[in-house]
Amino acid sequence: MTEMYIPTYDDVKAAHERIRPHIHETPVLTSSYFNELTGADLFFKCENFQKAGAFKVRGASNAVFGLSDEQAAKGVATHSSGNHGLSLSYAAGRRGIPVSVVVPRTAPEAKKEAMRGYGATVVECEPSTTSREAVFADVVAKSGADFVHPYNDHRVIAGQATCSKEFMQQTDGLDAIVAPIGGGGMISGTCLTLSNIAPETEIYAAEPKNADDAYRSFKAGHIIADDAPETIADGLKVPLKERTWHFVSNHVTDILLATEQEIIDAMYLTWQRMKIVIEPSCAVPLATILKNREVFAGKRVGVIITGGNVDLKKLPWMHS
Amino acid sequence: MTEMYIPTYDDVKAAHERIRPHIHETPVLTSSYFNELTGADLFFKCENFQKAGAFKVRGASNAVFGLSDEQAAKGVATHSSGNHGLSLSYAAGRRGIPVSVVVPRTAPEAKKEAMRGYGATVVECEPSTTSREAVFADVVAKSGADFVHPYNDHRVIAGQATCSKEFMQQTDGLDAIVAPIGGGGMISGTCLTLSNIAPETEIYAAEPKNADDAYRSFKAGHIIADDAPETIADGLKVPLKERTWHFVSNHVTDILLATEQEIIDAMYLTWQRMKIVIEPSCAVPLATILKNREVFAGKRVGVIITGGNVDLKKLPWMHS
Repeated sequence: MTEMYIPTYDDVKAAHERIRPHIHETPVLTSSYFNELTGADLFFKCENFQKAGAFKVRGASNAVFGLSDEQAAKGVATHSSGNHGLSLSYAAGRRGIPVSVVVPRTAPEAKKEAMRGYGATVVECEPSTTSREAVFADVVAKSGADFVHPYNDHRVIAGQATCSKEFMQQTDGLDAIVAPIGGGGMISGTCLTLSNIAPETEIYAAEPKNADDAYRSFKAGHIIADDAPETIADGLKVPLKERTWHFVSNHVTDILLATEQEIIDAMYLTWQRMKIVIEPSCAVPLATILKNREVFAGKRVGVIITGGNVDLKKLPWMHS
Repeated sequence: MTEMYIPTYDDVKAAHERIRPHIHETPVLTSSYFNELTGADLFFKCENFQKAGAFKVRGASNAVFGLSDEQAAKGVATHSSGNHGLSLSYAAGRRGIPVSVVVPRTAPEAKKEAMRGYGATVVECEPSTTSREAVFADVVAKSGADFVHPYNDHRVIAGQATCSKEFMQQTDGLDAIVAPIGGGGMISGTCLTLSNIAPETEIYAAEPKNADDAYRSFKAGHIIADDAPETIADGLKVPLKERTWHFVSNHVTDILLATEQEIIDAMYLTWQRMKIVIEPSCAVPLATILKNREVFAGKRVGVIITGGNVDLKKLPWMHS
C-alpha cells in the first residue's frame, strides 16, 4: 500500500497560480431576503457561474495543468457522468491533450454531447460498477492516460481548495462556511484552506437525508458507504474515500441533513429570489441553514453554490 | 397643455444620489460562450439581480424619494400588473408611505401578493382600459396620491438613466448598448445618459416582432400605438408616449426585431449557459444580436438584462 499524500496549503497556492488563467474568480452575491429569513449574514459564492458550470473545473484544471509534457501527451481519463467528466474535458481541451470519460450508456445524451463539445472521447459502459471498472481499466491500459479521480485525488482537493481561498478574500472573512458533501472533494478543499488561513471559521457539510452516508460516517468515526442512494441531489450520491475522510474527520464542525422536499423548496426559492440557476446539490446548504436557524443566526455565513448544470426541461417543481 | 419637461443629466446625477441607498449596483457578467457565438465582446448588466427583481425600481425610487414630505404623506399610485407596480410598492414601502396599485383582477395572484408583501394596497379593476382609468381616477381623487406613470414621467426616466451611468463606469465604455423597448422608459434613460457622457456609443432598441409599434413609429417618424399586441415578452406590450418618443426619435441608432421563437431560444440559452434567471422581455436584445451578427461583431456591446420576474412553474419551453 502506497502512503497517502495529503495536500498542503502550499499546494493550494500553487494550484491557484496554475489554474488562474483557466477559471473564473466567481462573484459573491448577497440577498437581503435570505438574510431576513435566516437572521444570518449570508454570502453566496457562485460557482454555478464557473467555467463548465461547476467548481469541479478547479480540481480538474489543477490535475491537467500540473502534468509533465510526457504524461500529458498520453492524456487523462476518468469515470463520471456529471460535472467532473465535463470539467476534465474542459481542462484537457484547454491544454489540447486527449481525454477519455467512461460514462454509463444510460446517462443523459446532453451530458455526453457537452463532453464531446470540449473534445472528449466518451466511452460508454453498462450502468454497473463491474462494467464501469472493466471498461475504465481497458481505457487506461490502452492509452496510458492519467486517472483523475473525481475527488479522492490530492491534486483535485488542492484545486477545489482555491474556492474558499478566493471566498475568504472576497468577504474579508466568515464565521462559518456551508458546502454540500458527496464524495467530499469540495468540503476537503474547504477544510484544507480554512484550517490553514482561518482555523476559527466553522465548516458545515450539508447532505441529503436520503444519502446520509457522510453523516453516519462522521458520527461513527469511520467511512460508511451506501449502495446507490436515491436523491434529487445527484452530485451527492457517492461515498467518502480515504483522502476526503481525512479532512472530514479532522476539520468538519458538523454535518447537517435536508429532506428531498426541503432541497427542492430551497432550490425553488433561490431561483425565485436570487434569479440564479442552481443545481439541486447546491440547494442543500441553504436548506440546512433554513432549518437550523439557531446554528447560523447572527453569523457571517458563506454558502458555496457548487454548480448550475440542470436540465431546464425537467425541473423538480414541474413534477410536484 | 402643460409644457413637457425633459430631464437633464443633472437630474440623472441627482437621481443616482437619491436612490443609491435603496438599490443595488448590479453586477456586470460576461460569457465567453456568447462572445464566440456573436463575435462581439458582450457585457450583461444584470438588473434581474436588482431590488424587486427589475430595473424599474430605479425610476420608482427616484419618484418616491423625491417627493416633498407633504406630498409623500398622501402617497403614490400607479396602474401596472408588472414590475413597475412591484417596484413602486417596494420604494413606497422603504419610505413608509401609502401606495395604491390598480391591477386587472385577472392578473396573477402571485404578483398581487408580492405587491401587498411590500405594503401596497392592491385595487382591482376589470381588464379593460375604460375600467382601469375609471378605477384609477377614483383612487387618486380619494387619496390625493401622486401618479407615478410607469415610463412617461421625467422622474422615472431620470431614474432608469442611472443604469447606463453605472454600466459605462463598470465597463470603462462601450461601443453600443442594446436594451428592450416597450413604453421606452429604459431606452429613454439610456439615451439621456449616453447622449451626455458617451454620445458616440450606439443605442439599439430591441423589440418583439409581434409588438413592433416602436419599430413602426421609428420608421414613420411619429408615434404609432397598437391595441393589445400579443407577445411572450409581456413587459414590452405598451406603446411609446411623448416623453419617451422624444428620446427614441432623437437618439436611438436603430430598432431591431425578434420573433417569439427567437426570444424563447435566446432566453433558454441564457438560462442554460449563463445560469441566470431572466424574463422573456430581456431575452429580446440577445435575440436581436444573434440574428444581426454583422451589426455587432468586433464591438464592445452592453446588454441590459432588465429583470428576472418569471413564473418558474410556467416556462415557455415547457409548452414547446
